[in-house]
Amino acid sequence: MRQGAGTRPRGAGRAQLHDTALRLFARDGVEGTSLQTIADEMGVTKAAVYYHYRSKDDLVLSVLAPMFEELDAVVRKTEAHRSRPARLEEFLTGMVTLIVDNHSRFAMLVRDPYVSRLMESHLDLVAWFHRIVTSVGAGTDLPGRAALLIFLSGMTAPLSDPEMVALEPAEQRELLLDCGRRLLQIRRR
Amino acid sequence: MRQGAGTRPRGAGRAQLHDTALRLFARDGVEGTSLQTIADEMGVTKAAVYYHYRSKDDLVLSVLAPMFEELDAVVRKTEAHRSRPARLEEFLTGMVTLIVDNHSRFAMLVRDPYVSRLMESHLDLVAWFHRIVTSVGAGTDLPGRAALLIFLSGMTAPLSDPEMVALEPAEQRELLLDCGRRLLQIRRR
Repeated sequence: MRQGAGTRPRGAGRAQLHDTALRLFARDGVEGTSLQTIADEMGVTKAAVYYHYRSKDDLVLSVLAPMFEELDAVVRKTEAHRSRPARLEEFLTGMVTLIVDNHSRFAMLVRDPYVSRLMESHLDLVAWFHRIVTSVGAGTDLPGRAALLIFLSGMTAPLSDPEMVALEPAEQRELLLDCGRRLLQIRRR
Repeated sequence: MRQGAGTRPRGAGRAQLHDTALRLFARDGVEGTSLQTIADEMGVTKAAVYYHYRSKDDLVLSVLAPMFEELDAVVRKTEAHRSRPARLEEFLTGMVTLIVDNHSRFAMLVRDPYVSRLMESHLDLVAWFHRIVTSVGAGTDLPGRAALLIFLSGMTAPLSDPEMVALEPAEQRELLLDCGRRLLQIRRR
């Protein structure tokens, strides 16, 4: 974070910028959200946004970064187990926690076409998915991969249900875990 | 379909327009695709596109219409059964067929933020989902609704997998049915 002291506009800190950007990206899509709109929403100038980010792509990648760090940690923990059932359980538990904690970020990643294009050039998502699939030992097994793709792509959807939103994170995780275990055919430990 | 004979530009029929629009919408998102881009891609003038559609929204709704007709048919068939297991099985089978046949349309509906906004004003998607949920008898049951949301939102994802793309539609349906039955806890008939 650049700490330009005197020149740094008030109320345009990175955390607040991330929150505002995430909310607008989720509502209008990344393509439909300009840096000007984000600045207007925060009541700052566009220059205040450019102070932190060179471009919208730069902002989008920065907004998503914490989720990728967490994803990396989940895959590392998964790889540390030896048996496939233990790997699947570790992956499922880790991913459900990640999704409950980073709902909007993950929804952007799996749904927003602007983000999909950006990921192609800035981050090899296919390689990521390959790493995930390898870590849970489902690499050559199409039915297992299909279930994993449904899980990764669909798990954020229930988090938009009003009754689900009203639950505590622990209850949200339990509900998603039950669905994930059935889909990925994992027995409860 | 307007049949303006002499004035109708060649190669700008509705079917070809739908195909081109769907391909570009899937690649660049609806927000990122202009009627001009679609016209350029087809090698016709923008006026030729406006001949068929008053606006991009008009085109998007027209592209999605066949899928909604099929969705309506699936829900009607589901409602015709009396027991909940029979309803779930009918719904699952119908939806998997719909998704395999209308992969790009359904992916647009569940993923594209432009389409989500358009649906809010043009079609009450919440009411649709309520109708679907009621038809399978999962209205007041959050775990059942969560599984249904994951299914509806995630089922198109495996259809992007290269190995899945290479399968016959019947094999694609069978794979998705297996995942759906596990997720929705339906026994094979």
